[in-house]
Amino acid sequence: MVEGKINEIHGWAAMKPGLKVEPWSYTPRPLSDTDVEIKIEYSGICGSDLHTIKEEWGGTMYPAIVGHEIVGRVITKGSKVTHLEEGDLVGVGAQVHACLENSCNACSRDLDPHCPKSVFTYNAKYTDGEQAHGGYAEAVRVNSNYAFKIPASIDPVYAPPLMCAGATVFSPMLRKGVKKGDRVGIIGIGGLGHLAIQYAHALGAEVVAFSHSPNKRDECLTLGASIFVNTANEEEVNAVRGTLNYLFVTSNSHTSQYGNLVSWMDFGGQVVLLALPEGELNMSPRVFIKSEVAITGSLIAGVKVLKETLEFSAKHKIFPTIERFPMDRVNEAIEHVSSGKARYRVVLENK
Amino acid sequence: MVEGKINEIHGWAAMKPGLKVEPWSYTPRPLSDTDVEIKIEYSGICGSDLHTIKEEWGGTMYPAIVGHEIVGRVITKGSKVTHLEEGDLVGVGAQVHACLENSCNACSRDLDPHCPKSVFTYNAKYTDGEQAHGGYAEAVRVNSNYAFKIPASIDPVYAPPLMCAGATVFSPMLRKGVKKGDRVGIIGIGGLGHLAIQYAHALGAEVVAFSHSPNKRDECLTLGASIFVNTANEEEVNAVRGTLNYLFVTSNSHTSQYGNLVSWMDFGGQVVLLALPEGELNMSPRVFIKSEVAITGSLIAGVKVLKETLEFSAKHKIFPTIERFPMDRVNEAIEHVSSGKARYRVVLENK
Repeated sequence: MVEGKINEIHGWAAMKPGLKVEPWSYTPRPLSDTDVEIKIEYSGICGSDLHTIKEEWGGTMYPAIVGHEIVGRVITKGSKVTHLEEGDLVGVGAQVHACLENSCNACSRDLDPHCPKSVFTYNAKYTDGEQAHGGYAEAVRVNSNYAFKIPASIDPVYAPPLMCAGATVFSPMLRKGVKKGDRVGIIGIGGLGHLAIQYAHALGAEVVAFSHSPNKRDECLTLGASIFVNTANEEEVNAVRGTLNYLFVTSNSHTSQYGNLVSWMDFGGQVVLLALPEGELNMSPRVFIKSEVAITGSLIAGVKVLKETLEFSAKHKIFPTIERFPMDRVNEAIEHVSSGKARYRVVLENK
Repeated sequence: MVEGKINEIHGWAAMKPGLKVEPWSYTPRPLSDTDVEIKIEYSGICGSDLHTIKEEWGGTMYPAIVGHEIVGRVITKGSKVTHLEEGDLVGVGAQVHACLENSCNACSRDLDPHCPKSVFTYNAKYTDGEQAHGGYAEAVRVNSNYAFKIPASIDPVYAPPLMCAGATVFSPMLRKGVKKGDRVGIIGIGGLGHLAIQYAHALGAEVVAFSHSPNKRDECLTLGASIFVNTANEEEVNAVRGTLNYLFVTSNSHTSQYGNLVSWMDFGGQVVLLALPEGELNMSPRVFIKSEVAITGSLIAGVKVLKETLEFSAKHKIFPTIERFPMDRVNEAIEHVSSGKARYRVVLENK
């Protein structure tokens, strides 16, 4: 049993529902043979962090340190960890543990986010009851299978958003086989969306970016979109109606808009939810039969896709557009994200 | 211009919303160069016929002769028809016309049911305003591309249900690539369902048949199901929960049950609607993200799939279980279908 180096982890925790986090510390779980201890350098802010601290998804276990776009250096490794060394720069995404055994119905098929023993990075409990805490902190201990070496060609400060936002949008594109010849819609040009445009474009698809902010037009075209559609402009919407093979929904568009989204799809097109819209999905089943459109969704990426995301991003130079905040200005950064002003992902930095 | 032989077509038409049809005749549209005139021998009764005569789907144009599972002999052919001869036994399904041109966005991709010029077999109008009438009649004139030669090895009386019920269930199985190793659920063991079991089994999949009628168990197993699940038996349902790669929904299960259906699916499984459930689909969008399940649907089959359905059915000896009624007892036959007692498809016979 190796001892960890940081035995009281200082971070910024939400203590009650709201947007505020405050200094708080916790004693990390003992470092197991297969764990690594990571000194955090950068931590991205994901929309899920805000939903969690505000308890919008229910069941937040306060105090809660959120953050699941973590990049840092391995400072201690368990005795059975062979693929990482102390000093390695690694990223951690939205998951920190799964059984990864061949006998597991989920893990054996690279569906480890669905493993019954899966532990998400924060606001989750290990099977022993210990609570997992995230990246708005100085350090974190995770299962080494969920610490991914950051390719040398990626500037570390750009890596955090790849760990959740990037992998989450790339995962269903890989699984569904997005390719040249496909017309891919991306709605919601934010943390996820601005990366989704780049991945779909790099996969060879023709990308249509949808936003109600016309001032994002030029940036979307630069990122790889062929067409920008201002969703408030009926004429622009009509010009692409009925033509999309995929629509990746990264915005929280209210479910009442889904009837409209479906009308943008080509026959047999797939609407893929990546963000949780507010409200219940309520639509006539006729739509499915008439247009053969599918509605589906995608959870976070597993180990295999996270590795592929990092490789693909390095190869195709897919990086997020970020704004940097020092960790001790985390509350200001959260407000900035919450107000919808972030362009497009915020990264907190430990100095 | 060739003259047709039957210049006043006698049939059984619905005159107003309800289950009754009565003798009625119409003057058929002139026989075009590409049309054929068919003397009808057999006509299947499809659930859609009942929805239409009862005006449950709205907009029924009375008088309406329904029926879109038609089998008969070509008695006249237009001058440009080369692939059929007088005397050929042909089947007609739920569609009688599409442009089938390469310049058509739908037809060029074998999606002719979605062609803007598509005409369904009944309760539909040609672009010239002429109304199409169906198979509860002595004859019908259709575009020859929608008259399909019935393979010699298929007993003609078993052919009508292949033209709609069969092709409709086989079409999405082909499109989605149902194969050995897949676990395929079929819910609703009726006209469509009892054929769906056979197609999925012949494609190599493991078939799970779901019904609230436990007395259908033996028949389902004989047709090719490996497992029969009585949906009223929680234990039987639990035994297959979370395991289906596809679920073909051929029953009119109320939409309120869809949350439950989704729980039967494996990660990424596809629920395919083939019948229109009553009510609005109302579910939490969380389901899609958590389980990555898709909800989709499928319309009728186009020309390509109809041909494949007939070939595949002949090759694998896939035939419907039918009950036969003479055409002049059509009202009795409709009542029988409406009461849910048909095992499993009713075929009307012209003597």
